[in-house]
Amino acid sequence: MQDKVIILGAGLPEGVGGALARRFAREDLHVFVSGRTLEKVEQTAAQITASGGSAEAIEADVTSEDDLDALFSKAGEREGALAAVIYNAGNNMPIPFADLSPEQFEFYWRVGCYGGFLTAKRAMPILEAQGEGSMLFTGASASLRGKPMFGHFAAAKAALRNLAQSLAREYGPKGVHVAHIIIDGVVNGDRAQTNFGDYLDNLGPDGALDPDAIADAYWTIHAQQRSAWTHELDLRPFSETW
Amino acid sequence: MQDKVIILGAGLPEGVGGALARRFAREDLHVFVSGRTLEKVEQTAAQITASGGSAEAIEADVTSEDDLDALFSKAGEREGALAAVIYNAGNNMPIPFADLSPEQFEFYWRVGCYGGFLTAKRAMPILEAQGEGSMLFTGASASLRGKPMFGHFAAAKAALRNLAQSLAREYGPKGVHVAHIIIDGVVNGDRAQTNFGDYLDNLGPDGALDPDAIADAYWTIHAQQRSAWTHELDLRPFSETW
Amino acid sequence: MQDKVIILGAGLPEGVGGALARRFAREDLHVFVSGRTLEKVEQTAAQITASGGSAEAIEADVTSEDDLDALFSKAGEREGALAAVIYNAGNNMPIPFADLSPEQFEFYWRVGCYGGFLTAKRAMPILEAQGEGSMLFTGASASLRGKPMFGHFAAAKAALRNLAQSLAREYGPKGVHVAHIIIDGVVNGDRAQTNFGDYLDNLGPDGALDPDAIADAYWTIHAQQRSAWTHELDLRPFSETW
Amino acid sequence: MQDKVIILGAGLPEGVGGALARRFAREDLHVFVSGRTLEKVEQTAAQITASGGSAEAIEADVTSEDDLDALFSKAGEREGALAAVIYNAGNNMPIPFADLSPEQFEFYWRVGCYGGFLTAKRAMPILEAQGEGSMLFTGASASLRGKPMFGHFAAAKAALRNLAQSLAREYGPKGVHVAHIIIDGVVNGDRAQTNFGDYLDNLGPDGALDPDAIADAYWTIHAQQRSAWTHELDLRPFSETW
Repeated sequence: MQDKVIILGAGLPEGVGGALARRFAREDLHVFVSGRTLEKVEQTAAQITASGGSAEAIEADVTSEDDLDALFSKAGEREGALAAVIYNAGNNMPIPFADLSPEQFEFYWRVGCYGGFLTAKRAMPILEAQGEGSMLFTGASASLRGKPMFGHFAAAKAALRNLAQSLAREYGPKGVHVAHIIIDGVVNGDRAQTNFGDYLDNLGPDGALDPDAIADAYWTIHAQQRSAWTHELDLRPFSETW
Repeated sequence: MQDKVIILGAGLPEGVGGALARRFAREDLHVFVSGRTLEKVEQTAAQITASGGSAEAIEADVTSEDDLDALFSKAGEREGALAAVIYNAGNNMPIPFADLSPEQFEFYWRVGCYGGFLTAKRAMPILEAQGEGSMLFTGASASLRGKPMFGHFAAAKAALRNLAQSLAREYGPKGVHVAHIIIDGVVNGDRAQTNFGDYLDNLGPDGALDPDAIADAYWTIHAQQRSAWTHELDLRPFSETW
Repeated sequence: MQDKVIILGAGLPEGVGGALARRFAREDLHVFVSGRTLEKVEQTAAQITASGGSAEAIEADVTSEDDLDALFSKAGEREGALAAVIYNAGNNMPIPFADLSPEQFEFYWRVGCYGGFLTAKRAMPILEAQGEGSMLFTGASASLRGKPMFGHFAAAKAALRNLAQSLAREYGPKGVHVAHIIIDGVVNGDRAQTNFGDYLDNLGPDGALDPDAIADAYWTIHAQQRSAWTHELDLRPFSETW
Repeated sequence: MQDKVIILGAGLPEGVGGALARRFAREDLHVFVSGRTLEKVEQTAAQITASGGSAEAIEADVTSEDDLDALFSKAGEREGALAAVIYNAGNNMPIPFADLSPEQFEFYWRVGCYGGFLTAKRAMPILEAQGEGSMLFTGASASLRGKPMFGHFAAAKAALRNLAQSLAREYGPKGVHVAHIIIDGVVNGDRAQTNFGDYLDNLGPDGALDPDAIADAYWTIHAQQRSAWTHELDLRPFSETW
């Protein structure tokens, strides 16, 4: 019987979410690929299915309790253990503090942190009952420190990080592996290719993070033996000097 | 002409907010003491006035834009420079993750972080226009790391911390001093005396943080010469070994 | 042609150094297993050879420039690229500061940090000339903070960590992967089994770090694609709550 | 009876050590100003004496046990409590790792960390016997992280920092206040004025740390009430954006 994994915040096959879906599917897990735009996650699921993997796309806004309930309910109907839940939702854009609205500040928190909490509320009881499984969160450089024009993003990511730490300490002894992966650089994904292709070119070969390489790190953490679990690791291109 | 200071999240004279109000009043600043419970902050203001200081109490819920608008409007009507704004709101209680409701998680963020953002939105333009003044935030051990049963609190405090870092970098060059004070231990304040007096006794003399000693640190940071500003410092009782 | 790896601070097969040697040998690398006690590293090398791997034991004190010169010279004579150099030397024992002698303090630094520097001095030019390869350092909880009675150890490990960070930034763009692995807990290795077997038993199954699981993490980091390199990760048993 | 303070790593009156000497002398403490170059610390002591303060200059190399013994012996002969010992020794220069010799690496550690250990070995028993007093260490940005070409400096400063943390935890409960002050920027001191005056000019008014402002922070920490001690704070010019 095939285990399953739920990935939240996936998008097109070219992004990190898409790579995560492919990576876990390659290990013979059934992947629930969810994201806000059904069309995108359907492309990812179709790509996996075409390659002989097992996947299905589900539309879900991580800030909606109803969407998350539907997603976890759908996943629960399928047989097999829940191997992992990956919270990969997030967005990022510089905004000078003077221009930052309360709605924007709250929105970044809802997507960057609150959705992670709502997801964990649904995932942890399942993983705890199993006595095993992983809950993985995507972090960023901003998880560690705030920079000018990124207060909204840094606040949300720091909140998610400390939540992940609390969960790790609270659920580790129950057999649940909670980890936080810090993606510390520009990802060579769908958004970057669309929005600043020239910038990517200037970084040179491997100068931006390859989503498949990122996904390898998630898989590795998931597969760790429980006597030596990683809670946090960083990922950054070799070429960055700072 | 007397400068003024706004303190948010003050309570009874015995707490940190009360001590901050006294400390800044002692330096001949007019203090706007605000908190959710008018009766409490009125006691604090009355104590200051009785000692020859200048203070007034204003009821304000830090999560309410209307309350904050009223508070800053009231403060703006009074002549004098705005020397400092201190965000001291917060609350804390252990809650197992399994028992934590979405409402609670959001509430902790609203008081612990969002109110700080709303306050900064009102404070920074004034301080920037002046080209000087301080914006001080109260942190906690949980600002730095999450522990079991404190995910809600640690997430909120980490978010506030990274927001403070972003503001410091963005507004420092404009002459605004943004700092984050980590209160790392039990405070010998009104709440502790009420709720766990025996525990305080067991800590021995000076085993819990004295609010007046805490307030001294805030004043010191506010008074720093701008070539050597502190962004963050910790405060903890001498007797703690960990 | 077979690549090679140099492991410093190896000991008996039961320890972390022994597990690292086995793990890299399993990937078809020739392993230079070095440590202060030839008899111990010979056991490790013999175990690998008996299993069909390729290894040789070399006695080397990491604080001796002559020993390191001999080790790297021996390794240089063998054909094949230098895939990785692993600095795993170290020792640890609580010593109250009042009892700590200058000789002890210096000794901990020599083994814990200076040997890492001397090793890197020999490794980096080779790795830089190749344009690839890894330099991995073993860290500990004490790398991050000092605790009572561990000032000597924490000072040495923090020094090694900051050295590793500098090297990572300086040599990353040249294709050399420098990483720092924080072993955050008791290792179920040769020393622990000898010195406090009862304590290990009390930790329960997987309550102490399994050297083979630790070694997996080193291998994984070495094998990362260069667009997404990890500089630091922690490893700790699932059962630790703090 | 006048209390006394020992300052190690002082130099000309224009530097941080000189400012520290003046600041503590102003509080009516007798100051032992020590440094490697007698002529420099004599200028500092003379300046203090001329202003009505009490100071004496003692030549001492912080890496020499004999020098430190002589210094503490001299200080011990004078009546009065030992209020504080300040370890301010250090030097800094970028050196590419490829050019860094073992002698340089060790020298940076000897001055940056080992001297601090030797000093603490002499200071802590006195402070512990008194049940009060401060041991203050000067840190730098490099105490927190390593950057390219500063591995030698970052390793030494990180070691000193973790040593300070261990001491703080070990001696705090005995009434000794151990703190670590991170000077995070260019100091407008004697060395900077000599070596890169143009650079200082470009930083603009207050763009480099004023030694007297730095010294204020040390005094403030020393004077803290023991229920709310700071272990670490940073000091940086208002104008730095990063």
